[in-house]
Amino acid sequence: MEALTKNHSYTFTIFGGTGDLTYRKLLPALYNLFVSKQLIAFQIVIIGRRNYQHDEYCEIANGWIRQFVRLPYNDDSFREFCEHLYYYQMDFTQEAAYADLHAFYSAHNMHEHIFYFAVAPRFFELIAKGLTHVPDARQGRVVIEKPFGKDLASARELNAQLEAFFAPDQIYHIDHYLGKEMVRNIQTIRFMNPIFANIWNHDYIENIQISAMEEVGVETRGSYYDQSGALKDMVQNHLFQILSIVAMEPMRDNSREEMHRCQLDALKHLRKASALKLEDTLILAQYDGYLKEKDVAADSKTETYAALRLFIDNERWQGTPFYIRTGKKLDRREMEIIITFKRPLPTADPNILIIKIQPTEGVYVRFNIKKPGNSEEIVPASMDFCQSCQEINRINTPEAYERLLMAVALGDASWFSQWDQIETSWEYVDQLKQRAINEFLPIHVYQPGSEGPNEAAALLAKQGHEWFNQE
Amino acid sequence: MEALTKNHSYTFTIFGGTGDLTYRKLLPALYNLFVSKQLIAFQIVIIGRRNYQHDEYCEIANGWIRQFVRLPYNDDSFREFCEHLYYYQMDFTQEAAYADLHAFYSAHNMHEHIFYFAVAPRFFELIAKGLTHVPDARQGRVVIEKPFGKDLASARELNAQLEAFFAPDQIYHIDHYLGKEMVRNIQTIRFMNPIFANIWNHDYIENIQISAMEEVGVETRGSYYDQSGALKDMVQNHLFQILSIVAMEPMRDNSREEMHRCQLDALKHLRKASALKLEDTLILAQYDGYLKEKDVAADSKTETYAALRLFIDNERWQGTPFYIRTGKKLDRREMEIIITFKRPLPTADPNILIIKIQPTEGVYVRFNIKKPGNSEEIVPASMDFCQSCQEINRINTPEAYERLLMAVALGDASWFSQWDQIETSWEYVDQLKQRAINEFLPIHVYQPGSEGPNEAAALLAKQGHEWFNQE
Repeated sequence: MEALTKNHSYTFTIFGGTGDLTYRKLLPALYNLFVSKQLIAFQIVIIGRRNYQHDEYCEIANGWIRQFVRLPYNDDSFREFCEHLYYYQMDFTQEAAYADLHAFYSAHNMHEHIFYFAVAPRFFELIAKGLTHVPDARQGRVVIEKPFGKDLASARELNAQLEAFFAPDQIYHIDHYLGKEMVRNIQTIRFMNPIFANIWNHDYIENIQISAMEEVGVETRGSYYDQSGALKDMVQNHLFQILSIVAMEPMRDNSREEMHRCQLDALKHLRKASALKLEDTLILAQYDGYLKEKDVAADSKTETYAALRLFIDNERWQGTPFYIRTGKKLDRREMEIIITFKRPLPTADPNILIIKIQPTEGVYVRFNIKKPGNSEEIVPASMDFCQSCQEINRINTPEAYERLLMAVALGDASWFSQWDQIETSWEYVDQLKQRAINEFLPIHVYQPGSEGPNEAAALLAKQGHEWFNQE
Repeated sequence: MEALTKNHSYTFTIFGGTGDLTYRKLLPALYNLFVSKQLIAFQIVIIGRRNYQHDEYCEIANGWIRQFVRLPYNDDSFREFCEHLYYYQMDFTQEAAYADLHAFYSAHNMHEHIFYFAVAPRFFELIAKGLTHVPDARQGRVVIEKPFGKDLASARELNAQLEAFFAPDQIYHIDHYLGKEMVRNIQTIRFMNPIFANIWNHDYIENIQISAMEEVGVETRGSYYDQSGALKDMVQNHLFQILSIVAMEPMRDNSREEMHRCQLDALKHLRKASALKLEDTLILAQYDGYLKEKDVAADSKTETYAALRLFIDNERWQGTPFYIRTGKKLDRREMEIIITFKRPLPTADPNILIIKIQPTEGVYVRFNIKKPGNSEEIVPASMDFCQSCQEINRINTPEAYERLLMAVALGDASWFSQWDQIETSWEYVDQLKQRAINEFLPIHVYQPGSEGPNEAAALLAKQGHEWFNQE
């Protein structure tokens, strides 16, 4: 890996170089990759409309990097890092400006391109078209942030626009959850442990929960969020990606193609939205106070919470419900995957495996023992493996963006969304949303700081299940 | 359970009432049962040759109980406990004395008898015969300590002597390992956890180890031990009992009969000693310095360490080696059962389950995760559930003897050795010992404080295995 990067001189061009994503995520990630010597020969071209001198931009970047960097910050390293930074003033909406950009690249001998579109999706086509004036871009890679479309139709349009200029394998759709340590760990935990691998199917698993709870509300993102909602903002992308990794069939090889084929196959086997009884499938809710948030419509029907009960109709998963929940202003920030196995006896508790994604990274296992003492009662005991609790791992575990930026540099698209996955999940979520509208599915209200609406508990209770909350 | 005991007034008669076992184990256990109100109506008749007054004996007992009791000692409780104690001076080798004993029982209205033979086996027949003069003994229970014989022939003789006077279901052969918390837990851990239950067979298990390591040497027991050795002292009884519980088929019901049938069935399927290649089966060794121990023959060939590789030839276990090791003067005191599952890949570590019996009581699980950070390497992680580390459990967990004495009182023989098990395991161990002699199997020497002889490691290495030592 290192050898490859040393032999290449990548040029990361960031459109939207003065935006939040660049400052908070991309620059700190690139700095970490530099400090940890994963990136050796590289340039970063920051595209912005404002008139900054190099030193001026570096000073601004310095403040953000100091704040958000993972590895110990150090002035000397930063000075070196800054020598790789180029601030390039440009109105990227002007097609004419791209010839100059090409000239700039040529003058600096920049030929291996990674273009990061850290801008609103409405600009994607403009930039892609502009880049036709940079001949080297033909062999370059394009990194796209979410949201990729706001529904199936707009996603298709966006994709058509990008694919008019770039081949599908040049386009990297970032889903930063796919860069998270424990998401990357799902397959190892599933397939590399006989204690789990052999019972990873409907015969032994009672239900699977994917829970992504947030404490924050919409904050400053009201205007975006109110057009989106929990289903589009979280379920369609992150949670469906995770679902597909948890549920997929074993890969026949470790290739990117096989991974994507297996993930897509799982999504394609989701029981059709049209075949589901809606009230047994979807709970939407809004936190009390949402309507008073900045940039939110006073009569908004946007859900800030969604709970789903889905089924994957293949041999492995027939009858096993997959429960998904996500929401804002809940009682905790916590993302985890909970595998509840079938009870060994009606009177015994189920075995439970939890893959903890954030904020804690780790594995939790609940199993049964005989109650200590003079009793034959069966009681649960639990074990926790907290990966992020181990200092050495905390330091060594890269941020999601580091991992993903490095993967782009190395041309490994395994852990990026593919268009066919995006298309499939948009189609699914669109159908659910449309049915919710057509069938007047209520938007329940829940209290900020709660676990969500009671109706989400009732959804599981129908099948004798409950959301698992570790004590 | 409590109701039953309250309605009964048990009389525990201890032959050998001034011996070590009585002082260190039986009296403290009975005191604990009294303090925890499991025994309400009961008498304890202490049979001894010496001339003690009641108060005198109580005072002696007091010293031992204070030292060895599990529950908080308290003077008032002890005084009450002592009211249940009867010291009865008697030469139990004199048959004539038993008529007086009967008169004593009658005078004190003692009719429900539990006779504890805490004496050398050579006295068993004498006592059993003497008890024919106590008519109520016909409905009583007899508790026998190990060793039950010193080989198959002597065990058969002993059994014939006892069964001449008592029915088989009156005879309780104590194996105090079967009273240990985590030995009682094996079945729950095995059968009540889908993550283990479904892979508890040769398809998924690479090997099973039962390891019973002691730090102490023969201490004051040289004269007994030198006639016995590790195979007879530990393997024939305790370790074969544990082996049978780990390996047995699932029980069809929870009856004593079914448990014993399943245990015996496992032992009966041990690959015949005559069908084994001896040097791939048995390693015997003696610690350096053993010959200088008190009461040990200067040219003794007695093994203080034994390691075995056995097979159970049934459908569940074909090809899975069961490794047993036990020895004195080793580097640690530790007893555990180690289940090593098959590797998911040749390059990945196996999953491991450890049931820890002593000194720590708990469960350890080793599983595989992706190495944290920028790596797809598979590395082991481990989780520990330490039952004895939880204060509440430590207090609530009865000593083995409490559990077993209570079980005798309740007439539950599930966790006692049965004659057919004893017979089967004596037969097996005798055959192994005989082959060792006939084929001049060497007695290796190992250093005190070591893990045992190198040859024991080599025994496993033949099949690519090793003794698992938790770091």
